[in-house]
Amino acid sequence: MTDNHSSPQAAAVTTHKLPTVDARIHPRGALDVLSRAEVARLRDASGGGMHDLLRRCALAVLTSGSASDDPRAAQELYPDFDIQVLQQDRGVRIDLHNAPAMAFVDGEIIRGVAELLFAVVRDLAWTAIELAEEADLRSGEGITDAVFGLLRNARVLHPSDPNLVVCWGGHSIGREEYVYTKQVGYELGLRGLDICTGCGPGAMKGPMKGATIAHAKQRRRRTRYIGITEPGIIAAESPNPIVNHLVIMPDIEKRLEAFVRMAHGIIVFPGGVGTAEEILYLLGILLREENAGRRFPVILTGPTGAAPYFEQIDRFIRLTLGDEAASRYEIIVNDPETVARRMESGIRKVREQRIAQKDSFFFNWALHVPLEFQQPFSPTHELMAGLDLHHGRKPYELAADLRRAFSGIVAGNVKEDGMRRIERFGPFEIHGDADIMQALDALLRAFVEQRRMKIAGDYRPCYRVVA
Amino acid sequence: MTDNHSSPQAAAVTTHKLPTVDARIHPRGALDVLSRAEVARLRDASGGGMHDLLRRCALAVLTSGSASDDPRAAQELYPDFDIQVLQQDRGVRIDLHNAPAMAFVDGEIIRGVAELLFAVVRDLAWTAIELAEEADLRSGEGITDAVFGLLRNARVLHPSDPNLVVCWGGHSIGREEYVYTKQVGYELGLRGLDICTGCGPGAMKGPMKGATIAHAKQRRRRTRYIGITEPGIIAAESPNPIVNHLVIMPDIEKRLEAFVRMAHGIIVFPGGVGTAEEILYLLGILLREENAGRRFPVILTGPTGAAPYFEQIDRFIRLTLGDEAASRYEIIVNDPETVARRMESGIRKVREQRIAQKDSFFFNWALHVPLEFQQPFSPTHELMAGLDLHHGRKPYELAADLRRAFSGIVAGNVKEDGMRRIERFGPFEIHGDADIMQALDALLRAFVEQRRMKIAGDYRPCYRVVA
Amino acid sequence: MTDNHSSPQAAAVTTHKLPTVDARIHPRGALDVLSRAEVARLRDASGGGMHDLLRRCALAVLTSGSASDDPRAAQELYPDFDIQVLQQDRGVRIDLHNAPAMAFVDGEIIRGVAELLFAVVRDLAWTAIELAEEADLRSGEGITDAVFGLLRNARVLHPSDPNLVVCWGGHSIGREEYVYTKQVGYELGLRGLDICTGCGPGAMKGPMKGATIAHAKQRRRRTRYIGITEPGIIAAESPNPIVNHLVIMPDIEKRLEAFVRMAHGIIVFPGGVGTAEEILYLLGILLREENAGRRFPVILTGPTGAAPYFEQIDRFIRLTLGDEAASRYEIIVNDPETVARRMESGIRKVREQRIAQKDSFFFNWALHVPLEFQQPFSPTHELMAGLDLHHGRKPYELAADLRRAFSGIVAGNVKEDGMRRIERFGPFEIHGDADIMQALDALLRAFVEQRRMKIAGDYRPCYRVVA
Amino acid sequence: MTDNHSSPQAAAVTTHKLPTVDARIHPRGALDVLSRAEVARLRDASGGGMHDLLRRCALAVLTSGSASDDPRAAQELYPDFDIQVLQQDRGVRIDLHNAPAMAFVDGEIIRGVAELLFAVVRDLAWTAIELAEEADLRSGEGITDAVFGLLRNARVLHPSDPNLVVCWGGHSIGREEYVYTKQVGYELGLRGLDICTGCGPGAMKGPMKGATIAHAKQRRRRTRYIGITEPGIIAAESPNPIVNHLVIMPDIEKRLEAFVRMAHGIIVFPGGVGTAEEILYLLGILLREENAGRRFPVILTGPTGAAPYFEQIDRFIRLTLGDEAASRYEIIVNDPETVARRMESGIRKVREQRIAQKDSFFFNWALHVPLEFQQPFSPTHELMAGLDLHHGRKPYELAADLRRAFSGIVAGNVKEDGMRRIERFGPFEIHGDADIMQALDALLRAFVEQRRMKIAGDYRPCYRVVA
Repeated sequence: MTDNHSSPQAAAVTTHKLPTVDARIHPRGALDVLSRAEVARLRDASGGGMHDLLRRCALAVLTSGSASDDPRAAQELYPDFDIQVLQQDRGVRIDLHNAPAMAFVDGEIIRGVAELLFAVVRDLAWTAIELAEEADLRSGEGITDAVFGLLRNARVLHPSDPNLVVCWGGHSIGREEYVYTKQVGYELGLRGLDICTGCGPGAMKGPMKGATIAHAKQRRRRTRYIGITEPGIIAAESPNPIVNHLVIMPDIEKRLEAFVRMAHGIIVFPGGVGTAEEILYLLGILLREENAGRRFPVILTGPTGAAPYFEQIDRFIRLTLGDEAASRYEIIVNDPETVARRMESGIRKVREQRIAQKDSFFFNWALHVPLEFQQPFSPTHELMAGLDLHHGRKPYELAADLRRAFSGIVAGNVKEDGMRRIERFGPFEIHGDADIMQALDALLRAFVEQRRMKIAGDYRPCYRVVA
Repeated sequence: MTDNHSSPQAAAVTTHKLPTVDARIHPRGALDVLSRAEVARLRDASGGGMHDLLRRCALAVLTSGSASDDPRAAQELYPDFDIQVLQQDRGVRIDLHNAPAMAFVDGEIIRGVAELLFAVVRDLAWTAIELAEEADLRSGEGITDAVFGLLRNARVLHPSDPNLVVCWGGHSIGREEYVYTKQVGYELGLRGLDICTGCGPGAMKGPMKGATIAHAKQRRRRTRYIGITEPGIIAAESPNPIVNHLVIMPDIEKRLEAFVRMAHGIIVFPGGVGTAEEILYLLGILLREENAGRRFPVILTGPTGAAPYFEQIDRFIRLTLGDEAASRYEIIVNDPETVARRMESGIRKVREQRIAQKDSFFFNWALHVPLEFQQPFSPTHELMAGLDLHHGRKPYELAADLRRAFSGIVAGNVKEDGMRRIERFGPFEIHGDADIMQALDALLRAFVEQRRMKIAGDYRPCYRVVA
Repeated sequence: MTDNHSSPQAAAVTTHKLPTVDARIHPRGALDVLSRAEVARLRDASGGGMHDLLRRCALAVLTSGSASDDPRAAQELYPDFDIQVLQQDRGVRIDLHNAPAMAFVDGEIIRGVAELLFAVVRDLAWTAIELAEEADLRSGEGITDAVFGLLRNARVLHPSDPNLVVCWGGHSIGREEYVYTKQVGYELGLRGLDICTGCGPGAMKGPMKGATIAHAKQRRRRTRYIGITEPGIIAAESPNPIVNHLVIMPDIEKRLEAFVRMAHGIIVFPGGVGTAEEILYLLGILLREENAGRRFPVILTGPTGAAPYFEQIDRFIRLTLGDEAASRYEIIVNDPETVARRMESGIRKVREQRIAQKDSFFFNWALHVPLEFQQPFSPTHELMAGLDLHHGRKPYELAADLRRAFSGIVAGNVKEDGMRRIERFGPFEIHGDADIMQALDALLRAFVEQRRMKIAGDYRPCYRVVA
Repeated sequence: MTDNHSSPQAAAVTTHKLPTVDARIHPRGALDVLSRAEVARLRDASGGGMHDLLRRCALAVLTSGSASDDPRAAQELYPDFDIQVLQQDRGVRIDLHNAPAMAFVDGEIIRGVAELLFAVVRDLAWTAIELAEEADLRSGEGITDAVFGLLRNARVLHPSDPNLVVCWGGHSIGREEYVYTKQVGYELGLRGLDICTGCGPGAMKGPMKGATIAHAKQRRRRTRYIGITEPGIIAAESPNPIVNHLVIMPDIEKRLEAFVRMAHGIIVFPGGVGTAEEILYLLGILLREENAGRRFPVILTGPTGAAPYFEQIDRFIRLTLGDEAASRYEIIVNDPETVARRMESGIRKVREQRIAQKDSFFFNWALHVPLEFQQPFSPTHELMAGLDLHHGRKPYELAADLRRAFSGIVAGNVKEDGMRRIERFGPFEIHGDADIMQALDALLRAFVEQRRMKIAGDYRPCYRVVA
């Protein structure tokens, strides 16, 4: 029963800021049956361009469950940490140098941490090798196939009954909201539902934690707590220790596509601007004519204190995208049990539809995701000026541009890159109807007031409206 | 995969104080293959003298995990709750009336709660039938056999490698101490150890909770969180929801014997007078000559704030039972990792000794438990006057009498029965050396000050020393 | 995963007729969690009166699968074999001396053989201890409870869906008939049915062998090949190696009761007088008014060559017990697939009835087995003269007496004891109608001709009819 | 537990020569999580060039276990059989038309047969898609990677302890030899070894059958009976029903490479010319300097009657390849137990070597297989004339040419293609030393005499020696 993941030469070294360990680890799972050529490519990739990325992601995983929330903390606390993927005829070996001692017990790496570490290597290698060499990333179908391929390689696609609830929401929510996400997770777990989140803290941890207790009470053994992240996020949002399936998608857009294609239903908890963007992404897809009859339960929920938050969002959506858009989701305030019941019955209908349409249970092939939602958006002044936020457009088009506007404004306010652009070139010019722009502004101000968006100093709009 | 534990006629009834449910449940596990005669005896016993006991224990289980700590709370909140065990040719059926809705999900009983409910019926039936009819409870061997029989019937005796840590400590400890018990449980769980406690809240829940997270991180699946209780305690200390094996021993003495015979090591967290009594019980046994070479790791531990507590206890033991008694345990302050390491290495030696002496892994047959530790003690004035608390006695004899003195004094201070006796007959007269009695008194006062013993009004000793 | 069933001191000793081995074995299963008292009683029983029985049964198990069919062969081939059950604090140890080397691989006992050996010790101990001390064997209910208790202790009672087919038939049938039993077993196995037989060779092995292949093809893993035997039979009919659950009932009547209470259906293959007795036993029970509506599929089947055999039996039953008795079974010649289909649909109805009547799946409590079928019959001249084989009696009474007549005649012809009685006191006098007695005679002669009953010299009736 | 592999519309149709069934089947295992693109390519391939191959292989699998040994029998008995692979959004569907009823039970396909059917589709698809598009089959490494890729996709590569014995030998051996292969399989199985063969009848079935019984007796559950075949062979040698992992390699050379890379040891039973070729193939590889120190247990064994067969082969090898070649194998006559023991200890050393050299357990990467052993050999007059069968060459070179000579002579004698060439162009001219050619001739004549090579009429050499 005992697996020597790590070799006996593991030794505590304490000259560093925090205690560290050197260890040799032999991977399991998807990495244990590789060809010699695959091992060589993996070694090369991890030593070359992928190395820094690998180092950062590995460190995030090795500090999983630590209290700290600070992205750069781990890097600073373990400055000498390094990881190497080595080839042995027998397969792959992972060498860790000055690794956080918290990932080890008496010199042995914790089994679950080792699994997450293998997942990091597995997914980065897949991205570096398969995506670089074989995938066709110009067409929408090609991108979807790449998303599918990575998820299958990560062994998270199972042909079992639909029961996967994706939960979105902020990673730094307040105590009341966090407790609420746990309660919802508990009610979901009691009903045999599994959880998939972005795998960080806050609303990404609460539902998993609640479900864990419920699954234990229901004596469910084969549970799935899937965390889907991407390299830019994992360092800041280290996987919580409950995650037992970790997937690292290559970028934000593929991560979002993974969410909507794997989800049998989505619950949105309160969050910041990121959460708002996710809602717009989701509605932009669901409002496409191709997806008209597609069953897809979406529930926005939070404790009583979060009611205003959802009211604002709802008002904004109705104003900009219309009431039909609002009919695609349901808002439930302070009622975890009802949330779980509605989700359960919604998923039952998803199951019926998949059977009727002979679609797979494990991947929502039939959902149409337009190419513009699959491609990255980088908010330059030029692109921002090209947005078209007027009434009268097709709702899904407007949703796409709103999401971009959002993304740009956030960048202009809080991201280093965006702030510098604003300083240099002045505020973005955005073309749109006044009421839409005012609503957008009101929403952002509310986020600031509710401390959902962190601003240094007063909030000053980084754009001006051009009608 | 779906088990219809409860029938569809389950229906929420809300005319009561709290929502309740009626349900029919078909037992699993030890109750699913019964003979007709056994079913009939079980039905009779549960309808007759055992019925009130069954009702109380069942209610405790059905409210498992509820926030309330109050023994009588459940009885008052669900005054109309009732349970009946019925015979069907096919086996046993359990009918619940006005049962707490919190034990159900959409009309289905939660699977883990159902298991605990079956455990209640199983153990009370075993006690009512086997103990009443077949057991020889006059000899020490007969009592040990009864303890063994009940534990085996509860299927908690497994011939697997020693890894069971019994944790003792208070059920209403402070936040700092509770967090500490979780940390110790986490470190134990990381090392593959299972937990057995009295199954209530506080120090009985913390170690299980910590171990749950650690077991998940180590991907251990077949974990044991054993709760051992008895009818007088279960109502006040409703099983925490992590317990996956519940055993209800017939009385306190058999419960204590179950602990020491199943334990491969014992950790004592801070607690009240009950915990002090348990320590004296354990030392009284370990100090017997017959148990001299017996490996039995005992660790007293708590956070920094609990250091004075253990110092006092240690001082008291050294004074009364001598330094040799103190050599039977180790005190570790504020170091969960060291606690777990020492326990692990201690259990390794237990394993070696069991193999060398061809003793079983699952039941400590070779441990000598004297008959006086197996028999109940009821503190009358006469029996209290018979205690002999002088230096010079054999340590294990003194330990036994000290435990009784303790028990009597506590009764005189806080138990209805004992307080009435004191009112009526005056304080107990206890024969003992002055320094012993003073130490005892100091210890009790400290408990009161640290709020570990709840006293209405000022503490007034209920005894006087007769030298 | 490696179990050291046998200790390293196992060493091949070849001075005997056949190679033998000495070994120490530590039991598993029902024998691994025993109390000290149980171990002591087991050791005493196995050293005392039970010892010779234990020795013979153990030897039968250790030579399981050997080609020889001769009861005494094993005893003569391994004259120095001995077995001892020893007490260790840790539990029971079994010491084997001069045990057949064929049960070992490189000094390690074959795991399946070890399991059968533990079953022998388990059941003989249960009989010696429980039956002697606790069971009430005077009442029918008491006997049924004893049968239930032994089967439960042997862990062959499972509350799973009805799928157990009991197969009866001769242990020394011809090749054509043996191949046919395999084919029937194959068709049963394809349909997910498990097999229970008397566990010897011939019709008791064929169905299990066929089912094994079918179960493998259907990828069924948890299969049951239950062998039910008794001490007088096991030596002559050593368990075939496919048996994975062995039960040793105390005597023939309890073995028969175990068959009819566990069976969800019975298939009768061609056999000798023993098989004829079993058919009369079964009909005698099914013809009771109490069992009138009781679903119980019974199929008599064999290859084309066996058609006359079943015609004779059918004729005999119709003559003596009437057509209604014949309606309780179905004769199918040379059609394994139809046999399996009919059995499957019959068992489906058994399932429905058990559910409707809330009867258990694993033990046919509702079947009425009269006391006279539960008590042994010893054919003295006096008892034989008391039989009443006239028309006009209730069919089930006549069936009971016919079975006894049969039993006595067989004894008079082939059993040492009976033959001596006939020599000394002359032929039995049997009171009965002439046509019944002639039919009986014709049946027996046919058995002799078909070599289903082994007679030294010519067949001479050992009885005479008294009208 | 019941899986609806086949839909209810399955209906017996009996207008054909033999009863047939139409059915729709939804694949499991490697085929249940496919991308849309993969499904489309699979459908196209199976409808196009691959279709006839698929049809033949599928039919072989659907008649698995049938008595007949005749390659063309199945095709003639089920002339209207057809198979189609269809795309559903949900995945792949297999439609069977006029399929052999023997593969079904009451309209449901037998689960194990379905698994073999999925294996056929899986491997043919892999070959058609991956091999055609992505593999580099010009280099030795590329071919080895292709072999590895197919085996991994078939999920037969596990990183568990070495225990796989490859058994070679004739598919139409005599009864004595067949029984012997069962006995060897039994002894291997008792020691926990798994079996891999060419998956047909005779020496390819016997070891699996023996191991099945032994595994059952040892209560081993996760057993592997791997059959490795190729499209030209499967029709003639339909998989025996014990095979639980079927792999269809693209051609004979890749099949041979799969054998030697997966084997932890090889046992050669008596066989015909095919077996002789396999021995020469194996020796040709093992005699390479690169493989000098490589542990690889090879045992040639058979019953007493087969002793002359192995003597001849041994003599031939010593004459042609030298005594060193003979030191690479061991001949054991009529001693199954010793065979198994030697194989077990040989594999133990393989394990040690793999660990020491950090080579994988599941694929013998370190074994050097020269390119000429990986490439097909087509015996034209030109190529045969190019062989160089003189003493003094390096043994492995001579072994390679001998194998080709063998292959050519067999073709000239029994294969349609080869016989036609001989008729047209006269006998092959082979350059070689006289003694080698005489030994070759003697060996072939012995095969004919022992009926191991089927010749119509007298044996006439199809070649002449040119010194």
